Amino acid sequence: MAEQIRIAIAGHGNLGRGLEAAIAKNPDMSLVGIYSRRPPEQIKPQDAATPVYEIAALKDHTDAIDVLILCGGSKEDLPQQGPEYAALYNTVDSFDTHARIPDYFATVDEPAKANNRTALISAGWDPGMFSINRVIGEALLPDGATYTFWGDGLSQGHSDAVRRVPGVAGAVQYTRPVKEAVDQVRSGARPTLTTREKHKRECFVVLEEGADANKVREAIVTMPHYFDEYDTTVNFITAEELARDHHAMVHGGFVIRSGNTSPANTQVIEYALRLGSNPEFTSSVLVAYARAVYRLNKMGQYGAVTVFDVAPGLLSPKSAAELRAELL
Amino acid sequence: MAEQIRIAIAGHGNLGRGLEAAIAKNPDMSLVGIYSRRPPEQIKPQDAATPVYEIAALKDHTDAIDVLILCGGSKEDLPQQGPEYAALYNTVDSFDTHARIPDYFATVDEPAKANNRTALISAGWDPGMFSINRVIGEALLPDGATYTFWGDGLSQGHSDAVRRVPGVAGAVQYTRPVKEAVDQVRSGARPTLTTREKHKRECFVVLEEGADANKVREAIVTMPHYFDEYDTTVNFITAEELARDHHAMVHGGFVIRSGNTSPANTQVIEYALRLGSNPEFTSSVLVAYARAVYRLNKMGQYGAVTVFDVAPGLLSPKSAAELRAELL
Ligand SMILES: NC(=O)c1ccc[n+]([C@@H]2O[C@H](COP(=O)([O-])OP(=O)(O)OC[C@H]3O[C@@H](n4cnc5c(N)ncnc54)[C@H](OP(=O)(O)O)[C@@H]3O)[C@@H](O)[C@H]2O)c1
Ligand SMILES: NC(=O)c1ccc[n+]([C@@H]2O[C@H](COP(=O)([O-])OP(=O)(O)OC[C@H]3O[C@@H](n4cnc5c(N)ncnc54)[C@H](OP(=O)(O)O)[C@@H]3O)[C@@H](O)[C@H]2O)c1
Repeated sequence: MAEQIRIAIAGHGNLGRGLEAAIAKNPDMSLVGIYSRRPPEQIKPQDAATPVYEIAALKDHTDAIDVLILCGGSKEDLPQQGPEYAALYNTVDSFDTHARIPDYFATVDEPAKANNRTALISAGWDPGMFSINRVIGEALLPDGATYTFWGDGLSQGHSDAVRRVPGVAGAVQYTRPVKEAVDQVRSGARPTLTTREKHKRECFVVLEEGADANKVREAIVTMPHYFDEYDTTVNFITAEELARDHHAMVHGGFVIRSGNTSPANTQVIEYALRLGSNPEFTSSVLVAYARAVYRLNKMGQYGAVTVFDVAPGLLSPKSAAELRAELL
Repeated sequence: MAEQIRIAIAGHGNLGRGLEAAIAKNPDMSLVGIYSRRPPEQIKPQDAATPVYEIAALKDHTDAIDVLILCGGSKEDLPQQGPEYAALYNTVDSFDTHARIPDYFATVDEPAKANNRTALISAGWDPGMFSINRVIGEALLPDGATYTFWGDGLSQGHSDAVRRVPGVAGAVQYTRPVKEAVDQVRSGARPTLTTREKHKRECFVVLEEGADANKVREAIVTMPHYFDEYDTTVNFITAEELARDHHAMVHGGFVIRSGNTSPANTQVIEYALRLGSNPEFTSSVLVAYARAVYRLNKMGQYGAVTVFDVAPGLLSPKSAAELRAELL
């Protein structure tokens, strides 16, 4: 191995744990530390030999880390951690509040540029791999339309919303694409689809003792923003069933671009993900982009960047010549 | 429009004609000329206003063309035209003899570097978009396996081979993925598949008068290299049916990467193309890469490059800020 890229993890939630697994699959990388806002003794790394530090230690470890992967939440953590650590480290994060990306980019870009760091924001699958396919699809078929479908997948935010309904003891929510809409889009037609026509929602709910099932169902399906614009099915199950059948954080979806290159000829491009674990896949993406960030920084590309700025070859541990010979 | 990219086409076959349509769909580009080895009066451009030149004129037009797209055949034309024109122009081609790519890269790289030109080789869909997905799939899921399936699609080379069989008046050949193999791969299993298990071949043949159908069928299905390793079906049709039902150059296929991020969790990535016209889609890809080559050249990246060296954002007419705001 020519050089080991020294990776550190800031934040030990789902992504942080997924990163431990992902780094172990990449022989050109080593995990040099996990940093958390919680006391180190509360963090149990997968490999007991991995050092765990309080996050404050990051101000002193700049010589020991090539790329710091930020695993904080997009809502509260990254808006503060992103700019702070981009001043000290090359960073990668998975910031996914789509509407705030331009602002977030600017707040990370400035400290990164000022300190000759490279900070890649919003990697993962959406934003991330799906975004790349939206851009390439549009560039290849300018006379066309792009559709993003999500699911079948467990939605964290919607599951949380169901759990807050009075009478609910436990719950998960799955987002599912509507088959008729998908078939239409795949055919190369370019339908205009409403929110309700694209996705449906399915909940699996454990009731509290004595709760009224009909009241709970009504409260869920009429919930503004979360469910009122969708066709929602509510299934009542036992706590055992919830624990047994619904713990996997499955997700996925697809980006479809269809367009015409001439009046007679329709072309359809589809990028699909079927993820057994959303956070483990997202972490695998973050790791590949950490490799790219390491290289971009050595090439002198400082400041904030996104997946749109990264050539595919930079994601691979193989050399350009190997890639041309083996995979082109 | 800030600046128009001036594109020229060298070679007016299927791709050359597809390029005329593709350039017309991109308002930031203009087609400044078609260059052919045949006499200009034999070439009929889609837009009668498009200038047509003898290919020898290319030695004098270097100031009028930003990117020259080479549409010659990979076997005979590009090995000579690629290096020759990379000394004079920024170029894009679709060289698709996979085994010879490293050699071809080297022969184009030298004149391009010596003359501060950027020459992108082997764009299209395979090599091209499929190659990108092979590289990214492997980088995201290092513990996994990659499968490329082609079809349903009309294969030019195999159709030509059938037409050379004595007794055949006309023919087309379709390559089709074997459904059982595809389903297995999509499930996340990582099967080892033989050539026969992955694809089958289907021929539609018009017999010459008096030809023996059984002899023709036998000659086709046992043909070495082309058919003997596959399960091949031969259908006999009329000349009218051939003309009516089999003129579209449909093609496509998919690249599937499946892998594990942990023992419990399988992830599947699939990139699929369903192309109403293989040459028109390929030409659309070449045009998007012409935009990227134009920009790379302005950025000072000289020499031969491939799709692996091109960041997705460079393919789009939109600015980086627009892409972040609209598509990330
Ligand atoms: N782009 C994409 O495709 C994509 C996909 C998935 C997720 N994401 C983004 O990634 C972000 C992080 O996702 P996640 O699933 O890893 O979130 P998470 O599990 O809630 O973790 C977020 C942070 O919360 C803290 N935390 C975790 N477990 C805790 C506990 N038991 N008690 C107290 N604090 C705890 C951790 O920080 P400390 O260790 O510092 O306490 C961690 O970094 C999400 O906000 C989402 O925006 C993006
Ligand atoms: N990477 C990919 O995904 C991909 C996909 C499709 C094709 N390709 C590649 O693209 C190459 C070109 O494909 P194509 O379908 O455009 O090939 P084609 O139609 O056979 O054209 C090749 C060249 O032959 C000459 N030609 C065309 N029609 C002619 C005619 N009627 N009489 C005499 N000469 C004629 C043209 O040069 P002049 O005008 O100079 O005579 C033209 O540039 C193929 O070799 C293949 O390798 C790659």
